[in-house]
Amino acid sequence: MPRYKALIEYDGTIYAGWQVQPNGKAIQNKIERAIEKFCGVKTPTQAAGRTDAGVHALGQVIHFDTTEKHDPFKVMQGINFHLKPNLIALVKVEEVDETFEARFSAKARHYEYQIFSRRARPVLDQNRVWHVPIELDHKAMAEAAKHFLGTHDFSTFRSKFCQARSPIRSIDRCDVTRDGDTIFINVSSRAFLHNQVRSIVGSLKYVGEGRWKPDMIKTILEAKDRKACGPVAPACGLYLTHVDY
Amino acid sequence: MPRYKALIEYDGTIYAGWQVQPNGKAIQNKIERAIEKFCGVKTPTQAAGRTDAGVHALGQVIHFDTTEKHDPFKVMQGINFHLKPNLIALVKVEEVDETFEARFSAKARHYEYQIFSRRARPVLDQNRVWHVPIELDHKAMAEAAKHFLGTHDFSTFRSKFCQARSPIRSIDRCDVTRDGDTIFINVSSRAFLHNQVRSIVGSLKYVGEGRWKPDMIKTILEAKDRKACGPVAPACGLYLTHVDY
Repeated sequence: MPRYKALIEYDGTIYAGWQVQPNGKAIQNKIERAIEKFCGVKTPTQAAGRTDAGVHALGQVIHFDTTEKHDPFKVMQGINFHLKPNLIALVKVEEVDETFEARFSAKARHYEYQIFSRRARPVLDQNRVWHVPIELDHKAMAEAAKHFLGTHDFSTFRSKFCQARSPIRSIDRCDVTRDGDTIFINVSSRAFLHNQVRSIVGSLKYVGEGRWKPDMIKTILEAKDRKACGPVAPACGLYLTHVDY
Repeated sequence: MPRYKALIEYDGTIYAGWQVQPNGKAIQNKIERAIEKFCGVKTPTQAAGRTDAGVHALGQVIHFDTTEKHDPFKVMQGINFHLKPNLIALVKVEEVDETFEARFSAKARHYEYQIFSRRARPVLDQNRVWHVPIELDHKAMAEAAKHFLGTHDFSTFRSKFCQARSPIRSIDRCDVTRDGDTIFINVSSRAFLHNQVRSIVGSLKYVGEGRWKPDMIKTILEAKDRKACGPVAPACGLYLTHVDY
């Protein structure tokens, strides 16, 4: 059976996250329904990252198999036609080897979080950023972020619903930069725990407010205790930007 | 009477443009109603640019007078409170001299137009860009754009509803740049004719498609004939970015 890899964008605002839901409101439901309309057969998909409700994607990757061989461009056009008017689109489709798996072949996942730090609320980026109406010290946040680099037990930074067997993860990138009123937090890892990025961002925001010193991140990381974490940042500022294979 | 200058952002998608409308659906209606709620008195406003329906602003400027003196920060907060849930916000407010007029004191107006050139439709930037699902030659567009620089009779590039007495305008900047799938067209002038930027962009898109050579812009400019213009670009890709005083 031919296998296709698709690069996907979505606005997560009105969907119940990536993973298929009985109510049909997940992004995976919408995509699988569109694929079924395109090729006439119920078609399961597998994604690189199971994003939560409200989280956006610029570079989610999925794979699926079809019974018949199609031109990849026609696969993209056909599925996009059936996805309308959802704010979900296939940006690129290619045929891949049957050994490729969107989830298990991934070598790195890259997320970006956007904090909008200004008194007036964002109007052009509503639901696309976390609006924090006070000034944040992004340099202190950048200093604090370095504590996340490397391999650690991230028990403090994972949801109590996280199903991963081990809390050990390796963070390869955790940068904080600023452009105007927007603070960008870029985090990369081979794999993440549930709510890990949003837990990291919520704690870094405490540092930005001056409530915590940058070294506090080291302290709460070493505590290996969920209760030591800052409040989890809202979903709307988070983007799955790309996945490396 | 104290006079205030306000910097304003809006998502133009659902509004009837800047200028006050009998149906109350213009951005000016929404702002004047919010100012009235804040200070208790009907308060007219004047804006730097009368943007059309669907056009966005990152840096619209208005002025208005109040009977009582207020702290500018409280003016911003109070009006923003009454503007909710509209996608309109005052970003900055300052008290200015009574000689300041948002429209007549402006020395330059800066617009940006965004064309999204990719097969798949934009999902995170729906209503924020002009989606052109074919490849455009942005270098040819940049070459063509140079013909707009300087002082010309822009009869070809103004709406038949334009009320300006003279079709002569001076364009100080007309750049075409590209970042990924987005082509940015930045145009600056002391003042613009009605639909001038969108007429320029629509004609440049013909050049980007290869339908016209870059020199065709010179030909149609010299024609001084509205019928020679390319199709007017849609409002959704246009942003009033800032105004100089």
